[in-house]
Amino acid sequence: MVNAIEWIDGKVVMLDQSRLPLEVTFIECTDYLQVAEGIRKLWIRGAPAIGIAAAMGIALGAQEIRAADFQDFLKKIDPLFNEMLSTRPTAVNIRWVVERIKNVLKDHRNETVQALRELLIREACLILEEDRAVNRAIGEWGAAFIRDGDTILTHCNAGALATGGFGTATSPMLVAQEQGKRIHVFADETRPVLQGARLTSWELMQSGIPVTLIPDNSAGALMKNGEIDLAIVGTDRTARNGDVANKIGTYTVAVLCKTHKIPFYVAAPLSSIDFSLPSGDSIPIEERGPEEVTHIFGQYRIAPEGVHVRNIAFDVTPHRYVTAIITEKGAFRPAHLKKLMKKNIDLREFRLLTAKK
Amino acid sequence: MVNAIEWIDGKVVMLDQSRLPLEVTFIECTDYLQVAEGIRKLWIRGAPAIGIAAAMGIALGAQEIRAADFQDFLKKIDPLFNEMLSTRPTAVNIRWVVERIKNVLKDHRNETVQALRELLIREACLILEEDRAVNRAIGEWGAAFIRDGDTILTHCNAGALATGGFGTATSPMLVAQEQGKRIHVFADETRPVLQGARLTSWELMQSGIPVTLIPDNSAGALMKNGEIDLAIVGTDRTARNGDVANKIGTYTVAVLCKTHKIPFYVAAPLSSIDFSLPSGDSIPIEERGPEEVTHIFGQYRIAPEGVHVRNIAFDVTPHRYVTAIITEKGAFRPAHLKKLMKKNIDLREFRLLTAKK
Repeated sequence: MVNAIEWIDGKVVMLDQSRLPLEVTFIECTDYLQVAEGIRKLWIRGAPAIGIAAAMGIALGAQEIRAADFQDFLKKIDPLFNEMLSTRPTAVNIRWVVERIKNVLKDHRNETVQALRELLIREACLILEEDRAVNRAIGEWGAAFIRDGDTILTHCNAGALATGGFGTATSPMLVAQEQGKRIHVFADETRPVLQGARLTSWELMQSGIPVTLIPDNSAGALMKNGEIDLAIVGTDRTARNGDVANKIGTYTVAVLCKTHKIPFYVAAPLSSIDFSLPSGDSIPIEERGPEEVTHIFGQYRIAPEGVHVRNIAFDVTPHRYVTAIITEKGAFRPAHLKKLMKKNIDLREFRLLTAKK
Repeated sequence: MVNAIEWIDGKVVMLDQSRLPLEVTFIECTDYLQVAEGIRKLWIRGAPAIGIAAAMGIALGAQEIRAADFQDFLKKIDPLFNEMLSTRPTAVNIRWVVERIKNVLKDHRNETVQALRELLIREACLILEEDRAVNRAIGEWGAAFIRDGDTILTHCNAGALATGGFGTATSPMLVAQEQGKRIHVFADETRPVLQGARLTSWELMQSGIPVTLIPDNSAGALMKNGEIDLAIVGTDRTARNGDVANKIGTYTVAVLCKTHKIPFYVAAPLSSIDFSLPSGDSIPIEERGPEEVTHIFGQYRIAPEGVHVRNIAFDVTPHRYVTAIITEKGAFRPAHLKKLMKKNIDLREFRLLTAKK
């Protein structure tokens, strides 16, 4: 499995994803400003991964802090929080990480400064480990839907590169492979930003999973030909009723799956489910500038100058197209997702299949 | 309207489509070898257009022939036929053009050599005019399905650039515009060769039709949002039962149309309907090399080295997804297509809507 980010010997080691798949370069960050630069310049991307990077960046910067006492330490660490928050102002995961670290510090106000510094390293590594554990659990629940010999379609990159490890949509594939199932994956190239071509196909190749890259418009023909057994995708945000917002093209995959009676699964860590949202109708859909469509890598023009473009970044797949939502607590029908809001409920009653440990 | 090829003042003037949309260059061919080069190097593409180019190339070369009599002329024109046939060995239209010209010559064996030379120019221009007339008729029948204010989705390039003029799928749009209907077109970029981005969006812009370029995976979201009223595509080969082979991704457009209750029309000159084929099942589907998917314009790598690729060039849309097939003789339900095989049949009984002249 590929590691997008790790803490090794007091350094933050980050794969520069902006150069993939042309170059595989790991950057050893010895300074928190370098980590911030990595987040800004998209060396690292994916909500969970940039949260982890922010935590590790803060821990790295904290090692340089010389402080008289807890209050002094708190004052001196504040610029580190701000630096990380400024890298991607809309990144919810960075906000969440900063709040979590502030709370951890408050809980340890009687520790020495040296102990606080070590605490921050432990906390950053814990955030990474927790993310891996969540994804691993998704993989174990999800692998139960994959049979020996299956061919799986995926869209965009919800892989190890976007997370602390395993990925979300890719985790069931990695676990199925571990279980000795022979699988094959079709990766949609995912225009316009080509995450499937650049990232998913690359990371599955690294993991030794047989992967075939296809243009987005080919999945329908392959399904009609009986060459796809199931689809697994990730999600940016899922509503309480199971409506799924994900990369543009996901909805088309879901419609094609329904037409061809192919199961369509969504790998969704609980953190990506917005229980305050009754349906996907209220999820705002970002539309981006034309350059991603008219130019490749911002450099090579492929369309006429001045052409009008719609570059819709996400779409919403209604819950009726979703066979199951695979979380770290089990796989559920969209209609049962809201059970996860309740306390003291026996989830076994609602889980689809059971993970083989 | 854009003209891909014309006979002007004794020269063959050809738009170099291989440079579109980055450069708009018209090449004036004064030598038949230049025309052959243009076909080989894809300055001109699209089955009808390369047939016309071959006819004009032969006419151009024939002007240089000095011959004693008909037999001598026939001997000296043979290398021209062979040169044109060698440019694209699988191009049915070039074969058809060469046969047609041979037959015309045979019918005029008593003419002077000077008259034969002029005859070949007239025949080449006639082939162009006939193609335009077929497309114009498709446009008139097809425009009846377009209402004022409609937004039309198209896929790949079945436009004026691929034909002598008007195009097939684009012709109803051009006629609707002439009729004063306000229309808007979404052009799928059409991965991997990007005919929609490079050609369709460009030629519609030249014709003053409002066009918006989208990645192939966006049409579903736009349909769900109620932003597409109908789809019109071309076809490479249509079977007797109305199954339609066309550029990869066409089938997905058809499935999405069915799901959203949007009419799906196929513009098909009678020459593209293979009445000997009972269904689309027996249409062989070309799969091409990986480079078109892994590289843009054969130059810029966008996928990992060594990645496995499926590059399926065409797909078959079953007739149940096709609302109507628009030919130069009228628009028909796929089930009525076979009526066109019969002689002495009143087609008015089977036509959908009536063209407004």
